[in-house]
Amino acid sequence: MKTTTIPRSEFEERIKKFQSNIQKKGLDACLVHGTESDTAHVRYLSEYWPVFEAAGVFVPAEGEPVLLAGPESEMFAKHRSVLKNVEMLKEYRESAEPDYPGMDLMTFKELVKKYAPKGIKKLGLVGSAITSLPVYLALKEQLPSAEIVKADMALWPLRFVKSENEIACMRKAYQIAELAVEAILNEIKPGMTELQVIGIAQREIYKNGGEYEGHSLYCFCGESTNNAISRPTHNKIVENEVIQLNIGARVSGYCSSVGLPFSIGPLDSRKRRLVEFGLEAHKKTKSLLRANIPAGSIVREYEAWVKEEGFDQYLLYGPCHSIGMMEVERPWMESTSDFLLQENMTFQLDTFFYEHDYGLRWENGLIIKEGGVEMMSSKFAEYTEL
Amino acid sequence: MKTTTIPRSEFEERIKKFQSNIQKKGLDACLVHGTESDTAHVRYLSEYWPVFEAAGVFVPAEGEPVLLAGPESEMFAKHRSVLKNVEMLKEYRESAEPDYPGMDLMTFKELVKKYAPKGIKKLGLVGSAITSLPVYLALKEQLPSAEIVKADMALWPLRFVKSENEIACMRKAYQIAELAVEAILNEIKPGMTELQVIGIAQREIYKNGGEYEGHSLYCFCGESTNNAISRPTHNKIVENEVIQLNIGARVSGYCSSVGLPFSIGPLDSRKRRLVEFGLEAHKKTKSLLRANIPAGSIVREYEAWVKEEGFDQYLLYGPCHSIGMMEVERPWMESTSDFLLQENMTFQLDTFFYEHDYGLRWENGLIIKEGGVEMMSSKFAEYTEL
Repeated sequence: MKTTTIPRSEFEERIKKFQSNIQKKGLDACLVHGTESDTAHVRYLSEYWPVFEAAGVFVPAEGEPVLLAGPESEMFAKHRSVLKNVEMLKEYRESAEPDYPGMDLMTFKELVKKYAPKGIKKLGLVGSAITSLPVYLALKEQLPSAEIVKADMALWPLRFVKSENEIACMRKAYQIAELAVEAILNEIKPGMTELQVIGIAQREIYKNGGEYEGHSLYCFCGESTNNAISRPTHNKIVENEVIQLNIGARVSGYCSSVGLPFSIGPLDSRKRRLVEFGLEAHKKTKSLLRANIPAGSIVREYEAWVKEEGFDQYLLYGPCHSIGMMEVERPWMESTSDFLLQENMTFQLDTFFYEHDYGLRWENGLIIKEGGVEMMSSKFAEYTEL
Repeated sequence: MKTTTIPRSEFEERIKKFQSNIQKKGLDACLVHGTESDTAHVRYLSEYWPVFEAAGVFVPAEGEPVLLAGPESEMFAKHRSVLKNVEMLKEYRESAEPDYPGMDLMTFKELVKKYAPKGIKKLGLVGSAITSLPVYLALKEQLPSAEIVKADMALWPLRFVKSENEIACMRKAYQIAELAVEAILNEIKPGMTELQVIGIAQREIYKNGGEYEGHSLYCFCGESTNNAISRPTHNKIVENEVIQLNIGARVSGYCSSVGLPFSIGPLDSRKRRLVEFGLEAHKKTKSLLRANIPAGSIVREYEAWVKEEGFDQYLLYGPCHSIGMMEVERPWMESTSDFLLQENMTFQLDTFFYEHDYGLRWENGLIIKEGGVEMMSSKFAEYTEL
C-alpha cells in the first residue's frame, strides 16, 4: 500500500521559516507544546506524535531545534523524530506523575545552556492554549530572567497554505473517509448501537491506509443529533430518525472529515425539510468561496442568506473552518475574521442546523483555488434514505 | 447488548467523599481538569468526556459541584453530565482558539460568586499536570487574592480501591480486549501492515460493546518492539520476528490492556529465550502480589530476582502499575513507593524486556485480594508461534 508522507526536506524548510518568524518577532526562542490528542504543532516540526506522555519542540532563533519528550519515550522519540536532537524532561511525563527514581533527566535550564548558549531574554510559547502547568512553572522557576510571551502566530501562519505533499495526504484521508462512510451505508441496520457503527468506520480506516481516526468519530441517531459536539453511545439505531455520521481518517498527521445526515426509512416532512435545507446551505457556502475574498464576508453573506430563507432560528454557527493537522484549525472563519482566503488553504464546509429534537451536519473538504474551490470529498452530496 | 455503567448514586458518593477531603486539606474549593485524551478525573466526577474542547469540574468545600465545558459543548455537556450544574467558559475552548463573537460565557470570577459565594482563599488544582495555561492565567487574574495549590491527592486516593461497579466495567473491558487479541491471532498474515492489524482490534472493540480504545493500541513487528512506548506504522508484518500486541478497550471510562509477544514462524533462540524469560518474570510478579504488602518491596524483590536470573541488562522498568480510568494511573509502583497494596486495587502486570534489536511486553490485569490476586485477563499466558 502506498503511504503518503512529508519528506524530510519539507520539515527542514518549516524550521527555517519558523526561525525567521522567531527572529522577526524579536524572540530568542520558541517552545512548542503537544499532547497525545493535540499534537499538530509538534508533529509539524518533528514528525513525532507522543503517546501517554506530552512533548515539546524547542527552537532557538539561531541554531538547532530539539525535540523534547517524556522519560519513557527516549527510544520511540529518537526512532521517529526527524530532528536529530532529542532530550527527555520530567515535565513531559504522563499525568500519573511517576517519580522515575535514578533516571537522569534534563532541566529547561540545562536545555537553554546547551542549545541557546547566549541565553534567553524573551521566550515565545506556541500551542499556549494546551501548554501544561508543570512546563510553565518550570520555565518560570528555571529561567527567572526570561520574559515568557504567547507566540502562537510565529508558527500558525506557516500551516495556513498547504503544500503539495500536505494536500496529497489530505486527499488520501478524504478518500479513506468516503470508503468508511460507504461501508457504513452498506452495513448499518436498525438495532445496531451507534458505537458498533463506529467500529465499521474504524475497520475501514485502518484497512485502507489510515493511521488513526481524523477526529473522534460521530454516529448519532435521534435526539442527540442536535448536539453540535458529542460522542457516540450504546443507543440503538432506529428507523425514521436522523442518523448523523462524521467520519474522518488521519494520514501522516493530516485529517479529513466527511459528514452527512441520512435515515433508514423516511423522515417526517419537518425533519426532511431541514436536512434538505442544510444541503442547500452547504452548496451555497461552497459557491461563496474563492481566493482573495475576506473570510468574514463569507460568514456574513451566509448568515444573511440563511435569514432570508427563513432558517436562522435553526442556525448555531458555521459555515466553514480550516482543516489540516487538526480537524478544526486556524484560521477560524467567523464574522469577525478579516484574513483573505488564499489559494491552497484547505477548508471544511461545515453546515450544522438543529431543532429541539434533532439536528444535522453536512461536511466536506475543499481546497481554495483562484476562481472557486476544488473538492477533496463530494461523494455524499444528496440526501440518502436507506 | 448489556452495557456496564456507574450508577448516579455512586457519582454522588464520590462528590461527598471528595468534598470531605477538600475540607480536611483546608481548601475552599478544587478545580479539576480534563482533556480529550486525559479525561479521567472529570469523568470520574461527572461522567462527562469532552471532545475537541477541554473540561473542568469545580467543587466547593460546601455546596454544589459544577461541570465546566467549552463554548461548543453546551448541549452535549448538559445531555451527558450527571452534575446538574453546567457552565461554559472560554478557557475550555478548542486549541484553535475561536473568538465566538456574541456568545455569552462565564468567567471564573462569576463562577466563584455563584457557586462559592463566601469566596475562595485557597483553591486546589486536581489534574495539575494537565491543567492548561489559559485556565491557570485566568485564575491568577480573576481571583487575585486566592492562593492556588496543587491538590491532586485530594481526589486521587478515592480512585485507588475500585468499587464493584468499577470492577465490573474493567472485567468487561478485559473480556473485549481478549476477544480482539483472539481475532488478530486468527487473521494476521505476513504482508499486512501493523496499522491494518490495529484495524482488526478496533473492529472487535466496538463490535463487542467497547466505547473506545483503552489506550493507543500497539502492534509492532521487528526492531521497534524495543520501544517502551511507540505507535504502530505502515511497516509490514514479517515472519520469524517478535510481533508485539497491546490491545485495550474502554467501558464506561474504564480501561483494559492485554499484551503479548508472538511470532509467525519460529524465532531464533536468543529472542525466544528472552520472550520466555519475560513470561516467567510476568508469573513471578503475579506471585508476589497480595493485600497488605508495601508496593516498593515488590519492585525491589522483582528487580533482585531478575538480576539473580542474569537478565537485569534487559530490564528498563516494571513490573506493575495501577490501571483504572487510565491505562496507567496512580498509585505508581516504583522502588520508592511506600503505600500498602489493598484489596480491590487493580493493577496491570507489565513485564517489559528489550535488547538493541527487539523487545517484548507481557501485560495482564488483576485485582488485589487478601491472599493473592484475581486475574481480569489470563487467556494469553503462553508463548504463541503461529
